[in-house]
Amino acid sequence: MRKIPLYLILSCLSFNLLADDGWRTPEAENLVYMQLSTGTVIIELAPFMAPKHVAQFKSLVKEGFYDGLDFYRVIDGFVAQGGDITEQKASKHKAPLAAEFTRVAPADTDFMLVQSPDFMAPETGYLQGFAAGRDPQTKEEWLLHCPGIMAMARNNEADSATTDFYITIGQATRHLDRNMSSFGRVIYGMPAVQALLRADVNVASGVIEEPGQRSKILSVRLAADVPSTQLINVQVQQQTSEAVTQRLTSARTLDNEFFHFKGNGNLDLCYYQLKSRVHTQ
Amino acid sequence: MRKIPLYLILSCLSFNLLADDGWRTPEAENLVYMQLSTGTVIIELAPFMAPKHVAQFKSLVKEGFYDGLDFYRVIDGFVAQGGDITEQKASKHKAPLAAEFTRVAPADTDFMLVQSPDFMAPETGYLQGFAAGRDPQTKEEWLLHCPGIMAMARNNEADSATTDFYITIGQATRHLDRNMSSFGRVIYGMPAVQALLRADVNVASGVIEEPGQRSKILSVRLAADVPSTQLINVQVQQQTSEAVTQRLTSARTLDNEFFHFKGNGNLDLCYYQLKSRVHTQ
Repeated sequence: MRKIPLYLILSCLSFNLLADDGWRTPEAENLVYMQLSTGTVIIELAPFMAPKHVAQFKSLVKEGFYDGLDFYRVIDGFVAQGGDITEQKASKHKAPLAAEFTRVAPADTDFMLVQSPDFMAPETGYLQGFAAGRDPQTKEEWLLHCPGIMAMARNNEADSATTDFYITIGQATRHLDRNMSSFGRVIYGMPAVQALLRADVNVASGVIEEPGQRSKILSVRLAADVPSTQLINVQVQQQTSEAVTQRLTSARTLDNEFFHFKGNGNLDLCYYQLKSRVHTQ
Repeated sequence: MRKIPLYLILSCLSFNLLADDGWRTPEAENLVYMQLSTGTVIIELAPFMAPKHVAQFKSLVKEGFYDGLDFYRVIDGFVAQGGDITEQKASKHKAPLAAEFTRVAPADTDFMLVQSPDFMAPETGYLQGFAAGRDPQTKEEWLLHCPGIMAMARNNEADSATTDFYITIGQATRHLDRNMSSFGRVIYGMPAVQALLRADVNVASGVIEEPGQRSKILSVRLAADVPSTQLINVQVQQQTSEAVTQRLTSARTLDNEFFHFKGNGNLDLCYYQLKSRVHTQ
């Protein structure tokens, strides 16, 4: 892929979304800081995919709903689910949400095709910096359940999510694609998520029965409400960057002397989620 | 799948390999206990796939080679690599190993086909309790690089592995399939592996430069050398068990009212690795 000429970069500079070195700084209004007992986690929200879930989650965050709650269902290799296991904590923002499993692609979608077919979707690629799927027949787009995705937990009914969420901590749970309202992704602090206490391996439900044992959610804040001294300047690779294109090309052909078997040309997009870095300049 | 009649179970009882409830206890000679600074990890070795690697690893373990070393290269979402970063520690068992990336299937292989084609292999399934791939043309079989797989690290040369190993801690690194000598799998204690300290996200090499920061390998022992009071009776699902068959059938059709989108019939075998439990009876 050719690099974008400088005049084009300058002509389409827009608030926070463009960096000229292949990295972007997510918009502050879409960033959430979670202070867990295991460390700091930063999540980029995806209002383009699940606007109602993002809005309710942000209202809950502003209300302080999650502060002091915990990760009560943590299954190694699957998900860490947090929130209010008692369902008793009061809130003005816990109405059941209509499902937002997929969206109909708008005319200006920036979906960037990487692979077709994918083993679980007609197409996979990147969408506003997230690993995503697309069905060209129905025009649906959705976020892939790769490691680090954040979605609202729900009951069997599609429209039953309210407050509690999960983060995927294992192998991509792609069978959840198009079945859950995914509304964000961890872009910093996955080690803190991976350090959350798991349920005993023999407990199939994954619930940690003893509240005192559960890893704690100390606080959740919108970036705008985090003291500036505690902000971390996380950047995410731009999906259109030269580095991403090169990584994918290399992934398809394994064109490196380290690889003696050269693969079959396919790749697993969940392994090639866009990278993050902490910008210190 | 029908259950095996009792008389057949009784007639083929063999040392530790058969359980009549769908679970097996791995043979003690193939079990390794790692005491890490983050907890206890138990690995089942795979001598059927990589006999030379298993033999050298066991010799190194018996020698105490790994005791006091550390995890010096830990990349979140990829691998945790442990051993002797200095390459200076003396050992009688550090000769370079001939690659064992795949094996030619023996006539009595128990490879159990689950999916064909898989997105990165002609066939995937289970082999002696491990997630595996197979090429019916070449008769090759190999272990899939799913989370929790253990393999010897190496340089670019295929036959350059000696002592240091890695455990996969992220999304399946299937591009490493048929390129590494995989010789075991974590069957207990993945949370302790996931709790290992990662390198700073900005350090592309993944090396934790400061030795004092690295998570430690306190000791590695063959099960036979672990005091009986410290043994943990870990069992692994038998690949031929009714529970596994049912899980796979359900995975293909998502035949549960929780799922509103019913998938395309494919599954990701790395998500369906055989489960473990601690048998307390």
